[in-house]
Amino acid sequence: MGLTAFVTGCAGFIGSHLTDRLLSIGWTVVGFDNFSTGQRQFLEGALARGSFRLVQGTLLDSATVREAMAGSDVVFHLSGNADVRGGPQHPYLDLEQNTIVTHNVLEAMRLNGVRKIAFSSSGSVYGEPSVFPTPEDAPFPVQTSLYGASKLAGEGLISAYCEAFAFQAWIFRFTSIVGERYTHGHVIDFYRQLRRDPTHLRVLGNGRQRKSYLYVHDCVDAMLIALERATAPINILNLGSEDFCDVDDSVRWISETLQVRPALEHTGGDRGWVGDSPFIFLDTRRIRTLGWSARLSIREGIQRTVAFLCGNEWVLEARP
Amino acid sequence: MGLTAFVTGCAGFIGSHLTDRLLSIGWTVVGFDNFSTGQRQFLEGALARGSFRLVQGTLLDSATVREAMAGSDVVFHLSGNADVRGGPQHPYLDLEQNTIVTHNVLEAMRLNGVRKIAFSSSGSVYGEPSVFPTPEDAPFPVQTSLYGASKLAGEGLISAYCEAFAFQAWIFRFTSIVGERYTHGHVIDFYRQLRRDPTHLRVLGNGRQRKSYLYVHDCVDAMLIALERATAPINILNLGSEDFCDVDDSVRWISETLQVRPALEHTGGDRGWVGDSPFIFLDTRRIRTLGWSARLSIREGIQRTVAFLCGNEWVLEARP
Repeated sequence: MGLTAFVTGCAGFIGSHLTDRLLSIGWTVVGFDNFSTGQRQFLEGALARGSFRLVQGTLLDSATVREAMAGSDVVFHLSGNADVRGGPQHPYLDLEQNTIVTHNVLEAMRLNGVRKIAFSSSGSVYGEPSVFPTPEDAPFPVQTSLYGASKLAGEGLISAYCEAFAFQAWIFRFTSIVGERYTHGHVIDFYRQLRRDPTHLRVLGNGRQRKSYLYVHDCVDAMLIALERATAPINILNLGSEDFCDVDDSVRWISETLQVRPALEHTGGDRGWVGDSPFIFLDTRRIRTLGWSARLSIREGIQRTVAFLCGNEWVLEARP
Repeated sequence: MGLTAFVTGCAGFIGSHLTDRLLSIGWTVVGFDNFSTGQRQFLEGALARGSFRLVQGTLLDSATVREAMAGSDVVFHLSGNADVRGGPQHPYLDLEQNTIVTHNVLEAMRLNGVRKIAFSSSGSVYGEPSVFPTPEDAPFPVQTSLYGASKLAGEGLISAYCEAFAFQAWIFRFTSIVGERYTHGHVIDFYRQLRRDPTHLRVLGNGRQRKSYLYVHDCVDAMLIALERATAPINILNLGSEDFCDVDDSVRWISETLQVRPALEHTGGDRGWVGDSPFIFLDTRRIRTLGWSARLSIREGIQRTVAFLCGNEWVLEARP
C-alpha cells in the first residue's frame, strides 16, 4: 500500500512538481489549492491519474481542510503568499496566508491524527544574515520583511506542535527556486520587460545584489531525500545551491538565452526593494550530508526558466 | 508638554505598574484592557489621576484600537496571553492574543502615524537554549511552546514593520516577573496549595529546573531606561536577573515567608510541563551596559510576592 500525501498549494510552481513526482513514485495525492496563483494547466498530468484528487478551496476554511485531509499520511504544506516585495502594500496578507493558514493546517492534522508535515519556509527568515553561507543555526535573526516574519511564525507554530502533540516536521528554508512552471520573480520580470523592449532593461538596485537559485527538480529531490533520511522530530534544512551569482550575471544569462543585448538601467542602492536582502547564500551542508546535491547550476536553472517562458507565454498573463 | 503613552494590558501585572510609573513621571496614559485577566483594583491609583484614560475593549477590534490610540506618542504593547502551560489545551489562543493582536496594534500605529513601540516578548522565544546565560543573538532557536512561538511571531511582525514603515522598537525578552500584583505562575500555585494544606506541596518536575526571576519594579526601570538610551531602529533586550535559582530554592523561600514546613512531592522529570524549559537564564549584559541593574535579588522578589499575596488573597479567586 502506497502512502497518501496532502499537498497544499498543489497547483503552484513547486507544489505541482512535487505532486507529479509523488504520483510518479506511487503515492496517492490529495491536492488542495485555491487557484489564487496556482494554475490548472500545471496539474494536467496529475489530473490524468486515478491516484490524484483535487480539492479546490481555501485553507482559511478549517472544516474543508479537515475533511479533505482525512486519511492522509504526510502533509506537504507548500501553499503561501510568495510575493515578498508586496508586504508593505498589504500587511495582513503574509500573516493570513503564511501564519494563520499554517495554524489551520496544523489543527486539521491534529484533529485527523496526521503527524508528519513538510513545510516550505524560506531563507528570508534569516533577515540580513551576518554569516555566509548562512547555516540553520545562524545567530538569532532580526526580521526585515513581513514575508520572512510570517514564514518564521509558521516555523514556530510547527515546531511547537511537534513538542506539544508529537508531530514530526521537515522545515525547508528555500532559496529562490527557478525552472519550469516558474511564474513569479525576477526572471519573469526581466523577461516581460525584454519582450516589450529588447534594447532596455531596468534592474532594481545596483545589480550587484548576490542571490542564489535552485532548480525546482533539485528542490523536490532534496525534500524527498530529507523525508526519507532525516529522522529527528524537527528537521530544519536549508535548500539552496552551493554557489551564488549577482543580479547582473542573471541578467546576462537571460539576455544570452533570448539573444538580446539590452542597455541596463540600474535604479541604484544595494537593495532592490524594502526588505530585500543584498546577499542570500545558504549553507547547505546539512542537506548535502544526507546524500543530496544539486544537479543543475544556477546558470542552467535560469536558462531552463527562460526556455519555459518562451514556450509558455500564457503565464505572463496569469495572475500575478 | 509631556508625552502620551498607549498601554495595552494596562490592568495587568506589569502593565499596571508601568502605567503608574509613567503617570508618576508626568506622562499622559491611555490604558487599554479587556479585563480578561487584568484587575480593576490595580488601576485604582491611575484612575484617580486626570492624566489617565481607560478604554475597555478588545485588541481584536481594529477600529476601537485605532481610535483609542490616536494622538499617542509611544505604544507599550504588554497585552497578551501569558498562560504558557495551557498552550496545548487551546492552540489558537496564543496565536490570536500574542500574534494577531500584535498585528492589529501595529496597523493601528501605522494608520495613526505612531512609530514607537515597546513590546513584552519573552525568554521563551529561545526554546531550549544551548548557551547560558542566553544572549539576544543566541543560535537560531527551535520553538518548544505555542506561547514562545506566538511571541517570536510578534517580534518578527514588529521588526518587519520597523523596516517597512520606519518604526522604532524596543523588544523586551522577559524572564519570569514577580512582585506586587502578581496573579499568575508558580508562586501563586504554591501559595494556593500551602493555604489549603501547609504540610504538603506538590512540585511539577524534579524541583531542580533552574529559573530566573525579576522584580516588577526593576523590570519597569529597565524598560524606561532602554527607551531613553537604546536608540537603534530595533532594540532587542533581555530583561532578567544576574543569577538564577532552582524551583526548590523558590519553594524554600516561599515556605520560610509563610512559616510553614511542607513535605515536598516532586512529580518527577526535568520538565514541569510540555514545553517547559528546564533552564532559563538570560544574558543581561546588553541592558546592564545601558546603566541598569536589578535592585532586588530573586529571593527578595519572591518574598515580596508572597507578602503581596498574604495581604491580597482576593487575587487567588480572580480569573485565572
